[in-house]
Amino acid sequence: MPAPAEFLKYIDNNADKFIKRLADAVAIPSISGDATHRKDVFAMAEWLNGQLKQVGVDTQLVDLGRHTMDGEDLPLPPAILGRIGDDKSKKTVLIYGHFDVQPANKSDGWDTEPFTLAIDEKTGRLIGRGSSDDKGPILGWLNVLQYHHENNIPLPVNLRCVFEGMEESGSEGLDELVQRESLKGGYFEGVDCVCISDNYWLNTRTPALTYGLRGLSYYKVTITGPARDLHSGVFGRTVHEPMTDLISLLGTLVSAQGDILVKGVDDMVAPPNEEEKAIYAGLNYSISDIEEAAGASIALSDDKVSVLMGRMRSPSLSIHGIEGAFSGAGAKTVIPAKVSGKFSIRRHPLVIAHLEKAFAAIGSKNKLTVENLHGGKPWVADHRHWNFEAAKKATKAVYGQDPDLTREGGSIPVTLTFAESLGVNVLLLPMGRGDDGAHSTNEKLDKSNFLEGSKLLGTYLYELADVQK
Amino acid sequence: MPAPAEFLKYIDNNADKFIKRLADAVAIPSISGDATHRKDVFAMAEWLNGQLKQVGVDTQLVDLGRHTMDGEDLPLPPAILGRIGDDKSKKTVLIYGHFDVQPANKSDGWDTEPFTLAIDEKTGRLIGRGSSDDKGPILGWLNVLQYHHENNIPLPVNLRCVFEGMEESGSEGLDELVQRESLKGGYFEGVDCVCISDNYWLNTRTPALTYGLRGLSYYKVTITGPARDLHSGVFGRTVHEPMTDLISLLGTLVSAQGDILVKGVDDMVAPPNEEEKAIYAGLNYSISDIEEAAGASIALSDDKVSVLMGRMRSPSLSIHGIEGAFSGAGAKTVIPAKVSGKFSIRRHPLVIAHLEKAFAAIGSKNKLTVENLHGGKPWVADHRHWNFEAAKKATKAVYGQDPDLTREGGSIPVTLTFAESLGVNVLLLPMGRGDDGAHSTNEKLDKSNFLEGSKLLGTYLYELADVQK
Repeated sequence: MPAPAEFLKYIDNNADKFIKRLADAVAIPSISGDATHRKDVFAMAEWLNGQLKQVGVDTQLVDLGRHTMDGEDLPLPPAILGRIGDDKSKKTVLIYGHFDVQPANKSDGWDTEPFTLAIDEKTGRLIGRGSSDDKGPILGWLNVLQYHHENNIPLPVNLRCVFEGMEESGSEGLDELVQRESLKGGYFEGVDCVCISDNYWLNTRTPALTYGLRGLSYYKVTITGPARDLHSGVFGRTVHEPMTDLISLLGTLVSAQGDILVKGVDDMVAPPNEEEKAIYAGLNYSISDIEEAAGASIALSDDKVSVLMGRMRSPSLSIHGIEGAFSGAGAKTVIPAKVSGKFSIRRHPLVIAHLEKAFAAIGSKNKLTVENLHGGKPWVADHRHWNFEAAKKATKAVYGQDPDLTREGGSIPVTLTFAESLGVNVLLLPMGRGDDGAHSTNEKLDKSNFLEGSKLLGTYLYELADVQK
Repeated sequence: MPAPAEFLKYIDNNADKFIKRLADAVAIPSISGDATHRKDVFAMAEWLNGQLKQVGVDTQLVDLGRHTMDGEDLPLPPAILGRIGDDKSKKTVLIYGHFDVQPANKSDGWDTEPFTLAIDEKTGRLIGRGSSDDKGPILGWLNVLQYHHENNIPLPVNLRCVFEGMEESGSEGLDELVQRESLKGGYFEGVDCVCISDNYWLNTRTPALTYGLRGLSYYKVTITGPARDLHSGVFGRTVHEPMTDLISLLGTLVSAQGDILVKGVDDMVAPPNEEEKAIYAGLNYSISDIEEAAGASIALSDDKVSVLMGRMRSPSLSIHGIEGAFSGAGAKTVIPAKVSGKFSIRRHPLVIAHLEKAFAAIGSKNKLTVENLHGGKPWVADHRHWNFEAAKKATKAVYGQDPDLTREGGSIPVTLTFAESLGVNVLLLPMGRGDDGAHSTNEKLDKSNFLEGSKLLGTYLYELADVQK
C-alpha cells in the first residue's frame, strides 16, 4: 500500500515550516554529557513533548531517577512515552529517537555557531549540532504525524514511541524502562516491530537499511601520582610522571594500522565466510567514499572489502583525548598531577586486565584506576524479516532504488534491549548521509534527506500495514 | 661590610606594606604564553616601571618589537632598563627578574583564586600565581631600594637592572637587547657581575646559591589527517587516526623510569667524577624532601645521589599535554582531526630527527610537523668567584648558615646570554623554597622567605661592595 500522494505533496509544501522547527530544536543545546547543560536536556524534553501533543500523540514524561557523572549527582532527563491508536486489526510499531546531542563549541572548528541552524542555500545543507543526530529524524516523525493530525487521517498502524535524552551518554535509565514496559501489561504490550532512525547511509548516494551495530565500551584510565602539578624543570627526572605512564599505557592499545593490541580482542571475532564477503563486495561503496567523508586520503587499506569489514564487523579502538593534562595553546612546562586518557573500544571489553598488566610492567609508583564510563551492546537482526521488507518497499517508492544493507560501526545502546525485551524485529532506518558529520564539527543534514526522509518514514508505515506478517 | 641594622629593622617594620604590594603585583594576570593576556603583561610593565621610579630608579621602557605566537602576530611586552649610581669607586651589579607568569585557572585545582594573593596566617604562606616566580623576588629588590631611597642612603654599589615580560615564553627579544647593551657604550657598560633571583632552594630548610642550569627545548609535535573531527563509530578502524599516531610517537620519547629513549641524548652527558658525586652526597637533602615537595612517594630511585643527579645534571623529558584532543570531562566519541603533543626536553635537541624516523616507522598516512616552541641554553658558573663569596657571606649573616651549592633542573634562558655577552660571573640567588610550586597550582612564597629574602638581597649588595675583586 503506497502512501497517499497528498502526504508526499504535504511534506514538500511545508518544507520551510519543517526547517524552521528543526532550527528551534537545534537551538536547545541539549548536551547530555556535560553537567552544565543538563537543564537544556530537560528543556528539550519539554519542547518535544509539546510538539508531540500538538500532532495528536498521547504522551507522558517518565522520571528516570538520578545518576552520577564525573562525581556529580544529577537528575536524569525524562524519557517521553507516546501512543496513537489501539486498533487490533492494525500492526503496532514502536519508534525510538533521542533528543540529546554531543558537545559542540564554535572553537572546535565549526564554520558557524553549532546551536544556530545554518542553511546553505547552494548545497541545501542544514548545518547545526543535532541536525542529523538525532533531532532531524525525530522531526521527520513529527512531520509525518502532523499531516495525519491536521487532515484527520488515521495512521495505517498503531504507533508507540519512546524518546530519550541520554543516548550520547550511555542511555542511562532507559534499559530498565524498556524492560519494564515490555512486560505483560506494560506500555509496549502488543508491539509487533521496532523502527529506529538514528544512523546514516553508507555513502552519499544510496539509501540504507541497517541490521547490525558494533557496540561500544568507553573507558577512562587515570594515573595519579604527585599531590599537585609540578614544574618540569625542578622535578623532571626525579619522579614518576603520570603523563609518561599514561602515554605508555595508551600506546599498548592499538597500532597505527588499527590492529587492536589488547590480547584476544581481534581473535574473538569469527572470520567472515564467502557469503558475507560477497555482501561487502556488492555494496555501493568505494575507498574514495570514505576518504571523501574523512576529507583526506587516510584509509587504512586500498581494499574496499577490508575497509568495510573494518567498519562493520571488526572491533575498533579510538583514543579520544586526555583530561587533566595541559590542553591549551602555547607552552606550559608542567608535569600534570592527574591525567585521564579517554578511549573506546567497539565491542570487546577485555581492556581492564590488559591495562593493569601493562601498568604493572612499567614499574611506576603512580596509581592507576580504570573506569568503564558507558557502553552499548552489539546487535544483529534478520534483514529478511517483514519489517525490513516494508522498509525496502518504502525506499524503492521514495528513492526509486533498493537500499544498501549495512552493519554500522556505531552504537545505539537501546537497540539490543528492544530486541531482547520485546522479542521482535528491530529495523534501523537512517535519514542522513554518510558525510553528515555526526559528533563532528559542522554536523549537517541535507534538506533533501530531511524531506525525502520524512516521506520515507511515512511511506514505511503504509508499507508496514500492508506487508504479510 | 654587613648591612645596616636599620635596614634589617625597616624590612620587618614594613612587612604588611610589602605584602600589600606583592598582592597588587599578583593581581595583574601577566601570562606571557596566552595571547588574550598580552595586555596584562603590558599593564604589569607599566606598574613595575612606576614602582621603580618611586624608589629612585632611573628607568626606560624598551620596545622589543613583535612576534608570532600560535599563528597570531603580537607586540612583545617592553623590557625595563633601570640604573642607580655611577660611582667609579663602587662595583656595578646588574640584577634581572621577570614580571610575566605561567597560566593559572582556579579550575586547575587551586584552593584559592590564583590572581588574588591569599595569606595563610597559620603557615605564613603567601599564595598566588607569581608570588614566588618571579614577582616576589623582584619586589624584594624594590623593598631594598625603598629603604635607601626613603632614608636618603646611597647604595653600596652601582645598580643596573633589566626586567622582562617574556621569560615564561622563551625570553623573546631579550637576547638581542642584552647583547646590544653589553657592547662598548651600551647600557650595561661597566657591569662587574650579575645577580638573578629566580629560582628556589633545594629543600625547605637551607638557603642556596645556584651555579648551573639544565636548559630547555620545548617541542610541539602535530599530527593532521582528516579534514575534520570524525565519529569513532563510523570511522573507527577505517582510517589512520592522528591520536593513535601521536600516542605512538610520544611513547618513543621517555621510559616510565625517566630514561630518555631518544637515541644519543643520555650518552651526550659525561659521567660524573668522584668529586662531583661528593657534592651531591653532601647536600642537605633527602629522598623525603623531594617526595614531600611532590606530595607523594614517587621518587624514581631510593638513592639520593642518583635522584639529585637526575635533577641537576641529567637530561629530562616531560610530556606536558595534548592540544586538539578531547580534554573535557565526560565521554565524547570523537576521532580528533588535528592533535599536538607538547613536551620538553631539558638540554638536548636531538628530537626532530628521532620523531621523523619514528613516524616513518609506523607507516601512517597522516601528516607530521614538529615545532621547537622555545628553549633555554644550559649554563654553569664558577661558584668560587667573589660574586658567590659575597652571596655566601650574606646568607650566613641573614640565615646563620652556609648555603647549599646547587645546579637547577629548570631554565632561565637569559642566564647564559648574560654570561657570554658581558663576560662576567652570574649568580643565581634564590628567594623561595623547594616546595613553592612554581608553574603549579597553589604557588606560594613563605612570608619569612619574602622578608628574610629581601634582607638577603640587600645584605648581598653590602657584602659585594666589600669583597675583594
